[in-house]
Amino acid sequence: MVSTSRTEAFSDGVFAIAATLLVLELKIPHAEAGGLLGALLERWPSYATYAVSFLTIGIIWVNHHAILDRVRRVDRPLLFVNLVFLMLVAAIPFPTAVFADYLREGHEERLAAAIYGGTMWAMGLAICAVWAYVVRGGLLHEEVDRDLAQRSLRIFALGIPAYPLGIAVSVLSAKLGLAVYALIALFYMFDVLPSLQEGADEEQLNHKP
Amino acid sequence: MVSTSRTEAFSDGVFAIAATLLVLELKIPHAEAGGLLGALLERWPSYATYAVSFLTIGIIWVNHHAILDRVRRVDRPLLFVNLVFLMLVAAIPFPTAVFADYLREGHEERLAAAIYGGTMWAMGLAICAVWAYVVRGGLLHEEVDRDLAQRSLRIFALGIPAYPLGIAVSVLSAKLGLAVYALIALFYMFDVLPSLQEGADEEQLNHKP
Amino acid sequence: MVSTSRTEAFSDGVFAIAATLLVLELKIPHAEAGGLLGALLERWPSYATYAVSFLTIGIIWVNHHAILDRVRRVDRPLLFVNLVFLMLVAAIPFPTAVFADYLREGHEERLAAAIYGGTMWAMGLAICAVWAYVVRGGLLHEEVDRDLAQRSLRIFALGIPAYPLGIAVSVLSAKLGLAVYALIALFYMFDVLPSLQEGADEEQLNHKP
Amino acid sequence: MVSTSRTEAFSDGVFAIAATLLVLELKIPHAEAGGLLGALLERWPSYATYAVSFLTIGIIWVNHHAILDRVRRVDRPLLFVNLVFLMLVAAIPFPTAVFADYLREGHEERLAAAIYGGTMWAMGLAICAVWAYVVRGGLLHEEVDRDLAQRSLRIFALGIPAYPLGIAVSVLSAKLGLAVYALIALFYMFDVLPSLQEGADEEQLNHKP
Repeated sequence: MVSTSRTEAFSDGVFAIAATLLVLELKIPHAEAGGLLGALLERWPSYATYAVSFLTIGIIWVNHHAILDRVRRVDRPLLFVNLVFLMLVAAIPFPTAVFADYLREGHEERLAAAIYGGTMWAMGLAICAVWAYVVRGGLLHEEVDRDLAQRSLRIFALGIPAYPLGIAVSVLSAKLGLAVYALIALFYMFDVLPSLQEGADEEQLNHKP
Repeated sequence: MVSTSRTEAFSDGVFAIAATLLVLELKIPHAEAGGLLGALLERWPSYATYAVSFLTIGIIWVNHHAILDRVRRVDRPLLFVNLVFLMLVAAIPFPTAVFADYLREGHEERLAAAIYGGTMWAMGLAICAVWAYVVRGGLLHEEVDRDLAQRSLRIFALGIPAYPLGIAVSVLSAKLGLAVYALIALFYMFDVLPSLQEGADEEQLNHKP
Repeated sequence: MVSTSRTEAFSDGVFAIAATLLVLELKIPHAEAGGLLGALLERWPSYATYAVSFLTIGIIWVNHHAILDRVRRVDRPLLFVNLVFLMLVAAIPFPTAVFADYLREGHEERLAAAIYGGTMWAMGLAICAVWAYVVRGGLLHEEVDRDLAQRSLRIFALGIPAYPLGIAVSVLSAKLGLAVYALIALFYMFDVLPSLQEGADEEQLNHKP
Repeated sequence: MVSTSRTEAFSDGVFAIAATLLVLELKIPHAEAGGLLGALLERWPSYATYAVSFLTIGIIWVNHHAILDRVRRVDRPLLFVNLVFLMLVAAIPFPTAVFADYLREGHEERLAAAIYGGTMWAMGLAICAVWAYVVRGGLLHEEVDRDLAQRSLRIFALGIPAYPLGIAVSVLSAKLGLAVYALIALFYMFDVLPSLQEGADEEQLNHKP
């Protein structure tokens, strides 16, 4: 129905906009004379959550493309699962801002950290659902190795218990929870991609003639 | 004039941005200690309208592409009708926010629901106008079956009485109205697309060589 | 240096975002019970300026593409002139919001209308500069008829006195000024494009094989 | 893994959105009758910083594309370095708004100017890191002249001491600092690109057949 390239274009738009809208949550402090530096430093939770959310969105974008590159055709249920996934990606600036605000105010920051982790978890489940539907729904591109696909599905699935772990850590300390969320993002940067690399090299060949 | 692909690129941008800007209407509650969870839950209308608007925009995007895929060439009147349509899509965050705010405040929520439905109705009429202009203005791609095109036009046209029905329900109950709007979005996800699927399979063939 | 297609992609992004950000200037009224409809209707200047600005941006986008379609290659000065032009396009939400606010408040609305027209004028001059640089700087695509190009340059140049006229009308009446700005946008929709249509039909031939 | 064209699409999105979001920092003055013009003029720091930031982002976009055009393939570390670079680009609206606000308020404007320059410096270092990784990591396209690549790396590296110079000037005068930042942007417009132009002309040949 809708081609893979159009699904990528719409998804790319949502990823890029959600990531860039995060900056709107960085509020300008209205400090007295001499108080600007302190007021800016006191807002460290905004910068830390900005960085973790931006990198998480960027890394999910990488994985989302790795999925779509392996799709033969897009059918209606896949479009719907993808839309629900994008709806969660687009929502990230909201729990990010709640987390940053309550971490700064210093009350209920652990609840805010858990809500943040819960949103990330829901998004992780949704991207797993996208990938699982592709692999099991017969939408996988014929040149993609099935074992490779199954392997990546298992690696993707590691995120499913990872975020609840982060949420559990958040209940002890919101700052430690944020660190766990950052580590999960880094894990998806460094570990998931190699398992799909064989197919990607072929792809590069017809990019620059 | 302007190529189909450029019209798609601009339209895609407006769809993706309008959908992602919806998150800016999710306001962070400034709760007292212990009040964050309650304050967040009390804002359920914001999340519900966010979901319905995001999915509606996503589903209209799917249908808009189904139309543009069947267009042979874009002429000036089509560009103008498309711009008016996009102007209504881009406006969606506004009635969404009005609906969410008044549903939470608990007064005039039925009027807000009707205004929301009215905007969706206007947008539905505009996309019908785009499609009708393509079919009747001789802009249809030569490989597209005319009967198929006419059939989809009739299915599209079902939305014209559907939204007034939703508005009528809104006058009784704003929450019920929101449920009807969600159902209309789902209807367009599941019922309109199959009627165009034959042409789409051909299209996939030249996407991945 | 930078290919035409990349310049189009960046420009398209700025056009689509500037047009869609206009919705953020539509503020939700916080009305008492029974006062929502009146409060919404009282904000008609916001909707009217939203429509005029959205259509103006959309129509400039059409003309900008008509220009880039006729460019053989992009050089550094062209990139710079184009950036200054995009800087003015991206700024449109600001004079739009000033115009809407002061039209509603009912004081200094004529000054606000003149500032709005002045921004549009500056943008019109910038797009003329882009086109003039292409035509005279030897960047025109070899298949483009020179007479056609010169003719379109003259038609484009009509906007140069048109906006000052609108500004003059604004000094008498801000509402009348807004109507003139809407008419200028419509003029660019209907009159400029046909002069370039011959080349465009050829272009369509290699879009859908 | 991820193709060069997809990396460009995501990066383009972030550039275009970050540049266009700058307009949201232009706040509408709520002036008394007769005070609008003065209130608008008094906000000159917002317009000046808007222009410098918009042009800087636009010029970085040009250089970023010049880099990606010379990349043979994108590997995981490059994606990560690029994400960190984009995270800094997307953050620009924040130091821009801080700079504009404190320049207008007239206290601590030199600190705000230094913070602005520091962000730009970090971004300059990040784009140098992207280019250095491409050149030294063996990701350079085979058709790109190595000497040309090394030369452009040296020219790029001129920005590394340029921003600290601007920061030093900012400590004396915030307005002078802003002028230096504008000059640095112009320098990157006019001096860096020619060194890569040879390869670009070839590229144009297969754009329009």
